[in-house]
Amino acid sequence: MVPAARTALDGATDILGYDTYVKMAGPLRADQRVHGTDNREEMQRARHAFETGERGTLRGDGVVGRSGSVSRWRRRCSRRWSRRITRTGAAVELTILPGVSAAMATAAQAGAPLGHDFCMLSLSDNLKPWAIIEKRLRHAAEADLVMAFYNPISRARPWQLDKALNIVREYRAAQTQVVLGRDIGRPGGTLRTFTLGELRSSDVDMRTMVIVGSSMTRRFGDAAGGGEWVYTPRWYE
Amino acid sequence: MVPAARTALDGATDILGYDTYVKMAGPLRADQRVHGTDNREEMQRARHAFETGERGTLRGDGVVGRSGSVSRWRRRCSRRWSRRITRTGAAVELTILPGVSAAMATAAQAGAPLGHDFCMLSLSDNLKPWAIIEKRLRHAAEADLVMAFYNPISRARPWQLDKALNIVREYRAAQTQVVLGRDIGRPGGTLRTFTLGELRSSDVDMRTMVIVGSSMTRRFGDAAGGGEWVYTPRWYE
Repeated sequence: MVPAARTALDGATDILGYDTYVKMAGPLRADQRVHGTDNREEMQRARHAFETGERGTLRGDGVVGRSGSVSRWRRRCSRRWSRRITRTGAAVELTILPGVSAAMATAAQAGAPLGHDFCMLSLSDNLKPWAIIEKRLRHAAEADLVMAFYNPISRARPWQLDKALNIVREYRAAQTQVVLGRDIGRPGGTLRTFTLGELRSSDVDMRTMVIVGSSMTRRFGDAAGGGEWVYTPRWYE
Repeated sequence: MVPAARTALDGATDILGYDTYVKMAGPLRADQRVHGTDNREEMQRARHAFETGERGTLRGDGVVGRSGSVSRWRRRCSRRWSRRITRTGAAVELTILPGVSAAMATAAQAGAPLGHDFCMLSLSDNLKPWAIIEKRLRHAAEADLVMAFYNPISRARPWQLDKALNIVREYRAAQTQVVLGRDIGRPGGTLRTFTLGELRSSDVDMRTMVIVGSSMTRRFGDAAGGGEWVYTPRWYE
């Protein structure tokens, strides 16, 4: 977490977010109101955040949310909020702070698999048709991009990862390097390396970041017991 | 910068890096040896880092470098270092710490343009043939991925960005949203929004992060003077 995010959390009167993520936000004070909600209630949460911000004073209000939903809600309500702003003279200020993504954290621990051209794809077909995911997988595979998969698998989406891996296998060799990072940057985080041929969807759960290498991605072991390193060079020889 | 990176820098006896980046590493102590070198001397720098680590004591040695080159050098030398390790009993420990990428920092300031499937592509043909870049651009455009361009332009590479934009324009509408972030997260950072039709390569320099939206990326103005927001939804309706 960057210091600016810690400062915003420390200065907040109200903290809204997905339950699991709010619990990861670190030590909070007894006077901070925590509003943890379910993963799928993003739009309601974003609305709640703006309503909370509107009631609160501007100073000390840190609102942390998923930026996509928050931006979308902001757009949907921009006219309404503009009116309110005119009426009361108090705007709801929105600040989005960047963090270290799960893909970057996993990549750093593995070496530098994302050291060159790559894509990040969500394998969840909850909000978009599977056909779009499949099309993107085929293009990314043909382009020889390293791929980082978000939302690879869940109880409600059991077959999507196998299907995705089989598509990638049409284009990439069985020896292609794969990195699995689970809870990287959190207590108990684990990093494992596979080849595309070895990987099974049962090795992956919803907290796993899957990085599939390009044809150039290489792994090498450290004979001194320092573990294995995976990297994608920027050089083409 | 994440606190772990600050701690590593504070604990380092020697700091090696690209001159410009070393200057951004923040306040350093008088007893810390700084070895700033040119951007293109990555492999020599990585070698120097391992040699410095080998001479130093393990404790207190923080080595900060570009992870790709460092991993590559580590691989090239793994046999040699393994022998040395056997001989002297002292390994050179390598730790790679993640940061907030320029693309993520720019995206956060703009809203959430990278809120859904995207790719990061380097437009530099210094180390790879232009044909590979063009192929990747075409696939990324067909896949309707948001694109973040690293190394978009330089004095030595004046035509590549125009060529890349013209390729993207074959697939995406002139109204496609574009975000330019220059020095985001640093003093004097600026954020500007364009459409793909409006963008000219003269708007971009080597310190600019270029984010080209997908067909779904939207921009909306904030009537309250809060500026403009750009986001890519995860929803397909």
